[in-house]
Order: sequence, then structure tokens, then C-alpha cells
Amino acid sequence: MLGGGFAGVYAAQSLEKALGRKGDLEIALISKENYFVFQPMLPEVISGTIGLTDTVSPLRRLLPRTDVHVREIESIDLARKVVMTSPGFRPHAHAIAYDHLVIALGNVTDFRGLRGLPEHAMPFKNLADALHLRSHVIRALEEAAIEDDDPELRRQLLTFVVAGGGFSGVEVAAELNDFVRRVARSYRGLDAKEIRVILVHSQDRILPEVTEKLARFAQKILTRRGVEIRLDTRLEAATGEEAVLTGGEHIPTRTLVSTVPSSPHPLVEALDLPKTKNGRLVVDRFLRVEGQGDVWALGDCAQVPAPDGGVSPPTAQHAIRQAKSAAHNIVAAIRGGEPKSFDFKGLGKMGSLGHRSAVAEIFGFNVSGFFAWWLWRTIYLTKMPGWGRRLKVATSWTLDLLLPPELIELKLAGSMGVTQEHFEPGQEIFCQGDLGDRMYVVLSGTAEVVRREGNREIVLAEIGSGEYFGEMALLNQTTRGATVRCTSPMNALSLPKREVGVLAAHVPELRKSLDDVMTRRARANARTRAGAA
Amino acid sequence: MLGGGFAGVYAAQSLEKALGRKGDLEIALISKENYFVFQPMLPEVISGTIGLTDTVSPLRRLLPRTDVHVREIESIDLARKVVMTSPGFRPHAHAIAYDHLVIALGNVTDFRGLRGLPEHAMPFKNLADALHLRSHVIRALEEAAIEDDDPELRRQLLTFVVAGGGFSGVEVAAELNDFVRRVARSYRGLDAKEIRVILVHSQDRILPEVTEKLARFAQKILTRRGVEIRLDTRLEAATGEEAVLTGGEHIPTRTLVSTVPSSPHPLVEALDLPKTKNGRLVVDRFLRVEGQGDVWALGDCAQVPAPDGGVSPPTAQHAIRQAKSAAHNIVAAIRGGEPKSFDFKGLGKMGSLGHRSAVAEIFGFNVSGFFAWWLWRTIYLTKMPGWGRRLKVATSWTLDLLLPPELIELKLAGSMGVTQEHFEPGQEIFCQGDLGDRMYVVLSGTAEVVRREGNREIVLAEIGSGEYFGEMALLNQTTRGATVRCTSPMNALSLPKREVGVLAAHVPELRKSLDDVMTRRARANARTRAGAA
Repeated sequence: MLGGGFAGVYAAQSLEKALGRKGDLEIALISKENYFVFQPMLPEVISGTIGLTDTVSPLRRLLPRTDVHVREIESIDLARKVVMTSPGFRPHAHAIAYDHLVIALGNVTDFRGLRGLPEHAMPFKNLADALHLRSHVIRALEEAAIEDDDPELRRQLLTFVVAGGGFSGVEVAAELNDFVRRVARSYRGLDAKEIRVILVHSQDRILPEVTEKLARFAQKILTRRGVEIRLDTRLEAATGEEAVLTGGEHIPTRTLVSTVPSSPHPLVEALDLPKTKNGRLVVDRFLRVEGQGDVWALGDCAQVPAPDGGVSPPTAQHAIRQAKSAAHNIVAAIRGGEPKSFDFKGLGKMGSLGHRSAVAEIFGFNVSGFFAWWLWRTIYLTKMPGWGRRLKVATSWTLDLLLPPELIELKLAGSMGVTQEHFEPGQEIFCQGDLGDRMYVVLSGTAEVVRREGNREIVLAEIGSGEYFGEMALLNQTTRGATVRCTSPMNALSLPKREVGVLAAHVPELRKSLDDVMTRRARANARTRAGAA
Repeated sequence: MLGGGFAGVYAAQSLEKALGRKGDLEIALISKENYFVFQPMLPEVISGTIGLTDTVSPLRRLLPRTDVHVREIESIDLARKVVMTSPGFRPHAHAIAYDHLVIALGNVTDFRGLRGLPEHAMPFKNLADALHLRSHVIRALEEAAIEDDDPELRRQLLTFVVAGGGFSGVEVAAELNDFVRRVARSYRGLDAKEIRVILVHSQDRILPEVTEKLARFAQKILTRRGVEIRLDTRLEAATGEEAVLTGGEHIPTRTLVSTVPSSPHPLVEALDLPKTKNGRLVVDRFLRVEGQGDVWALGDCAQVPAPDGGVSPPTAQHAIRQAKSAAHNIVAAIRGGEPKSFDFKGLGKMGSLGHRSAVAEIFGFNVSGFFAWWLWRTIYLTKMPGWGRRLKVATSWTLDLLLPPELIELKLAGSMGVTQEHFEPGQEIFCQGDLGDRMYVVLSGTAEVVRREGNREIVLAEIGSGEYFGEMALLNQTTRGATVRCTSPMNALSLPKREVGVLAAHVPELRKSLDDVMTRRARANARTRAGAA
């Protein structure tokens, strides 16, 4: 089993059941996390309605008879029937041989090719994403509360943008909105009126998964609670300070979450197996990958034929049923027996709007508001794996009625290391007088170095691809002597002070090269100034 | 108020109370985290007996009338009466002017000068340390469960060493031991018998804070539960793979926690104020720093005279009373009034041994076992700030009776960036045939490069200070062509593959310098081989 989502975990669980006392099967599951995420409740982690880890369950508890490998998958060799996993504490790769392979890797949010999104948009897929977003939002509120003399920065910090108006994006926007407005009261000098939460969606209505009527209801509820909705609009680009929308609107923000676009998992992309145009694996009604005897695919990475001739939608309820069918068919292939075709039609769809409202389509009925929300909670609570988990979630929900929301900021990332940043024309990468906290290496695009002297601005230099800047204030421990302003869309490596200091101190060649650039620049500056004078 | 621990928070709280409706005081508190940690319960985070954030409280909830600055402190200027904080989202420093300064920065665990400890020992001071330790331990169990063909690595992964036998170290060892033994059952192929938890203490008995009788009781309980105790022993050095003790014992381990030694906070160290030999600020009976009119110090960073002529011990109960006295005296200094001297004598001492046992000295009585544990829970529960927090902890404790412990591994650190590592003579830094995952720059010490050819080992080169190694497999995407073995204690910078790749691709000087070293080495290897042949 490759993947620890609904499809992979339920397939392993069904195989464990089929195993009985026979012991003729060995089951292994590879997942990059040691837990299963109950996706429908993930947005509740943002608001802390449930405990931080209540929405996940340890794989080993769910799958006591499966060998769980908590590793990244390096490669899949279909010919040799071996999966290689990444090294653990020692740098050896690990090979796992298989007789039957179940591919259940889901899909990924993929920002490649979108200007500035890989650098500055946050995905919302797994627990780490949810915790990261939550901590980032709290950090933004903390900073807004003390940055009272910089209205531009305050506006950026108090504006939250969510791109993608499907179930996932709507739930994130709803929970985020509830959370920031509720906790803003605990911050002196923050006014809930300053807060903006903006939902951006490419179509003319949100929630394409449900009927227009339910979608309109959801829009009304969200708008009433203060969420601004931008329809027929896409996210075009992003920098660390703003979101740029199609149509030209620039929204100043430091928090940009995007649940779109989804792409196939890179490992699936690399496989030489029949795929649809959008990269999903083509399987038959028995979940077997077309033309293969021992490779199965299910969940969001597979295109599974639905009984009505269409395609099975990418939801948890379908993944669970696919997993059960696949497990049955694998056992049938090994022990001999009739395979069963997958013919689940779906029970309905539900999406929470937070704060006691939801929309649902169940057995053909449309439900919205409090009753839908009650259904949502009840149904998902019973669907959580394990009664321990259910008890914890029910307890958290009860305590949440009594207590104010948590606002603990967990600092998740230690050292940030080398990152990439994107800048748009006109943006100031840093300003004269700022503290020098990082240097940059330009990967593409251009910028100009300008110095303010009284009311004049003198352009000292142009910077292009392959050049560095910002090293001077860093190595000389002074503030920035000039402003660097982006002149065409720029991607740059951003190297934090600590890393540059350590490297420059111990890699003499790097130190020399930095010194050379600095000498050259100092000379050029002297010339420019002489010219300007 | 500098510092968000017991002393700082309770001082701010007392000032808020004194504020009444007068509004003549402005209170600001600077803390690097946005929460207050209830230290006595921090070890329970390891075992997950309480929720991950149950032991902390948001500062803004505790201090609704205080300006809370969640920032690092950059410097304290006593002459200009200004505290500078580190930049937030924008690289500007922030200045906070004061009339009265309360220094309550506590102390820090400081591994400087100890061979390999700064690189490889984990401190246990704040919530991040506790979460990091917990995740690391789960990671070690996950890996041990699948590394079944490498007994040496398994031994390292399943051995846990705690240095420091005071309350803090004993509680960490007890909780860690309970946790790993309890969750090991969930791992196929892990046997609780393989697990070792070792507590190292420099004196002839643990818990110097309590009487010998209680300490012996604690030793007996811990030993019975499987903790090995090494007395009269200190941690001498550490590498990523072992702990070296005085007396020469080498313990293979990947998990080394040390609660010792404590040092003064670097900011306190930098202040030109009267200090004791061990770096604590000298204050009078009114908590005022000697010779100062407007600087106060309390908690673990201050040496506070006790009413019996001795020194007030560094415990929470003393810090809280000191905070109240200091707040009273500050208000007296501002509004006019009689200062009160600090004359709290202490109520007792308690330490949990985990799993329904504890030791306590209360009002002169010695208590141990279940009753002490019940006292411990009851007293600390009532001491937690806020009834919401108490309710959550009580709920967690109740659920813990019913449910198995959590074993979710939160991946806290994203990219690790450039780190330092320490190696001891004889240690293999990497082995021929390993995957190339990082390169090294030697800061001090030496190593040899050896190649195994059949049964022979050929020394290809010696590596010393300022040289790199390991870059070849990295840049050529192959496995390691030789083994590098440490020959004298070595400190090295460790640069992960990703960082090196990105830098080498975009910083031509670095790429060139790496290429030069590689060419030189290839030539030297060819010569050595020709010589050996």
C-alpha cells in the first residue's frame, strides 16, 4: 500500500480482516507521516475547535497487523516489483518487494509555473499545513498588535486570502474567519473591523460540488460573517506582501492559502502506466490498473469508473469503498475467487461553514444551516476511526462551547535555511535604514539599487540574474545603505544572516567572492556619486 | 517586564491588579513566546498524558491589560532606559522605553564548552523542547521498528539518555520511560526489553532538592520501572550516535536529553549590574537590583535574600511571591508608599515520578508514593492559571485513564539548513556505499578517507581544519566512494544536499571551488591507487 490516506489505510484494514488466522498475507504500508488524517475535520484545527492532534490517528493503532514504514518513497520499480524508500537515520535506501502493489498516493497542491505561488502561497492538505497556517495567523495577529506605527504592514498582517472555492477552500475560509474574529478580542489595540478575509474563486459561484441553491446559501452565510467573496477571479501571482488577482486587483496580505490547483503525485507522474489527460491512473471496474496484473490504484490518484458510466468522484466515502473492493479483489487474485466490481453510488455531500452552519446533499435532499451542521458533526464523528478518537473529539467540542479558543503559537520551523522568494515590479526588497537580516542571489528578473539623499533618489546600480545583493549590511553588521526595488518579476534565493555568516567564515572561496563583489560595488558607488555630484 | 515565566507573568498580573481604575501605569511584557509555560507539568507533554498545549496559557488571556510584545530582546540600555526588541515581519528594531524595569529572564541550559553537547544534546526548558523531544522519540521508535537488519542502529535508537538528576531530569526520565515502554506495544517487532532509559547524575544520589530518604525511594521506584541510574557520573561528550560518560563508558544512543548545566541568560550576562559568582543579579530584600533605583530582578536570574539569611531557591512558588512583592514595591515607588520586604519561607517541594508515584516534602512532612502523586496532581491543578486550563487538564487526565497514549509524530522542523556536528575518534562520519545526503566543512579536528577494496583498507587522504569532504557523491549523484573516519575530535559544518545543490547551481564561485577540490582529490586518489598497486 503506497499512501496513508483514506484509500491506503482502509485497503490495509480490509486486508487485515481478510488475513484472519491464515497468515498467508504480509501487508506493508508506506506513508510519509505516522498518522492518518481525517481530512473532513482538518479545517477545525485552524480554529482549535478540536485539539491539535484530534483529527489524526496513529497508523500503528489502526493497522496492528501491517508493517508500517514511515518514510518517503524514492522510486517504484514495476519491472523488479520493488519500492525504494528514502533513508532514515542512516543514509541507506530501503527496498520493499511486493507481489501486489496498491497505489493510493492521492494528489498534491502544485503551484509550479504560477508566479510567486511556490514561494508564498500555503497549501492546505495535511496536518503540518494546518498547524503551520494556524501558527502563522497567530503570529500575524501578535505582530499587528504591536506594529501600531506602520499602517501598511498592519493592513497586510490583518488581511487573509484563501484561493479556491470548493469544499476545502470554503471550509478553510470559514474556520479562519471565525477564528481571527473571535480571538481578535484578546488583543489590545486590534479591532475586528480591521480584519479582512477574502475568498477567491474562479467560477461564478462557490461550491461547484453542490447545487446552486446550496452554494448561494453558503455565499450568503459567509458574506454575513464578514468573508469577502471574489467570483470569476483567479490568483495570478503572489509576493511576500500581496496577492495579485486576475483583473488586476492587488490585495496587501501576508497570509495566502491556496487549495488549488491539484496535480497528480510526482511518483504517479513518473510511472509508465496508462493515465488520463489530467494524470490519474486508468483502472478497470475492479480497481486494477489497465493492462496490469498486480498493480491496483484507488482514491484521488485513480480514475475509477462509476456504475452510471461516469467517473467516481474524489471523496472519502468513495475512497473507502474502493479500498474495500480492491482488498477483496487482491485476496481473490491470491487465493482464487470471484473479483467484485466497484459499484458504489455515493450517499451525499457535506461541507461545514463553521460556527453552527453547513450545507449538505444527502440521499437527494438539500439541507442547510443548523440542521446540516448537526448532521455534519454527527455523521463525521461516527466515521472517525476508533472510539478513543471519537471520545476526544466529542470532548473537545464540548469544551469549546465553554472555553475561549486557544491562541498558542507553536513555532514549528526552527532554522529556515535557504529559501526562495518572489518579487513583483515596484516592490521594495529592502529599504535603506533596515536591519540587514539576509542576502539574496538573483535567479531571474531585475532590480535597481537606489539611495535617497534628502529628497533625491539616486540609482546606484542595476542588478540582474546571477548577481548577489544585500551582503554588505550583513557582513559589515550595519543597516542597509540603499533600497533595492524590483524592476521586473524576480525570483531570488534568500540566505539568512546566520547561514551566510557561518559559510563565509568557513568557506574561504565564498568569503573572497563576497569581498570581491563588495569592493567592485563600493568603487561603482563612488563613481556614481562623483557623477551625480 | 522582561520574560514570560512565573516571575514576569505574576509581576505583570499584580501590577494589573494595582492598576485598578487609575490608569496611571502602563504595563508592557516582552516574551519570546506568546504563552506562559506551567513548568511543573511540562514533562507530561512527553508522554502525552495531557494535551500538547494544555500546559501553556496564552499571555494575552492572562494579562488583558498589559501590552504583550512577542519578540526576542536584542539589548537593554540601562542609561537611556530603553529595551530594543528584534524585528518582526519587517526588519526594523523596536524600542520600548521604561520607567521601571523588571528583569525576570530565568536561566538557560548552556552546553557551550562541552564536547559535542551543543550539537547533539537536547535541552528541556520550554514547550518547543518538549514537543521536539516527543517527536524525536516517536521517530526513533518508528525507525527501530523497520531497521531490523542493523542491530547497532537499533540499539542506538532504543536507548534514551537523560543527564541531570534534579527534579527536572528525574521527571523527564520517568515520563520518557513510561511513554516508550507503553507505546512500544503498538509497534510490531519492537520488544520493550530492548529499550534502555539511562539517567546520569553527578552526585551520589538523585534529587538533591529533597531528603536522602525520599531520594532513595525515588531511585527504587525508577529502577523497578526499568530506568538505569548512573551516579557520581557526568556526561563528558556526545556525538550523533553515542553519549560518552566520565569513567569512559560509551552509551550508543540517538536521544540525549540534558537538563544541566544552567547558566545565566545571555542578556543578563551582558548587563553591567552587580552579580554573584554564578551570574545571578544581586537584589536587596525589596527585589531592587543593588545600587539601582528603577531596575528590579526576580525569579531564577536573581539572587534574592531569604528571610533566614540564606538565598531564596529557584522554584515557582518563590518566583510568584517575589513577583507580588516586586509589583507592590514598584507601585510604592511610583505612587509613594511603604515598600514591603520579601519574606516567604516556602511551603514544600514536590516531584512527580510518573505513573501514580511522586515524592513530596510539605510543611516539613515527607510523603512518597501514591498519596504524594495525588497531592502533586491536586496542588498543581489548583495552581494552574485560569479555570479553563484546569478543566482541560482534568479532562485530559481522565481520558488518559481510558485511552492509550498518543503517538503522533509532529514534524516540527522544516528544512534543517546548515547545522554543526561533532564526531569522536573512531566514528565513521559516512561509509563507502552510503547515499550522499550532505557534505561537511571541517571546523576543527581531523579525519581519514579510507577505501575498502576486498579485505584491504587503503587510506586515501587525511582531512583537517578548513577542508571540505563529502561533496563528490553529492554533486555527482552517486553513493559514497569511500569511508571517512574521525581521527581526532572533530567539529564540522554539515550542509544538506538541497542547500549545497541550490548554492552550487547559483553561486558560480562556490561551484568552481567545489570542482577544484574534486579535481585535486581525483588526482590524489589516482596517485594513491597507483602507489598501492
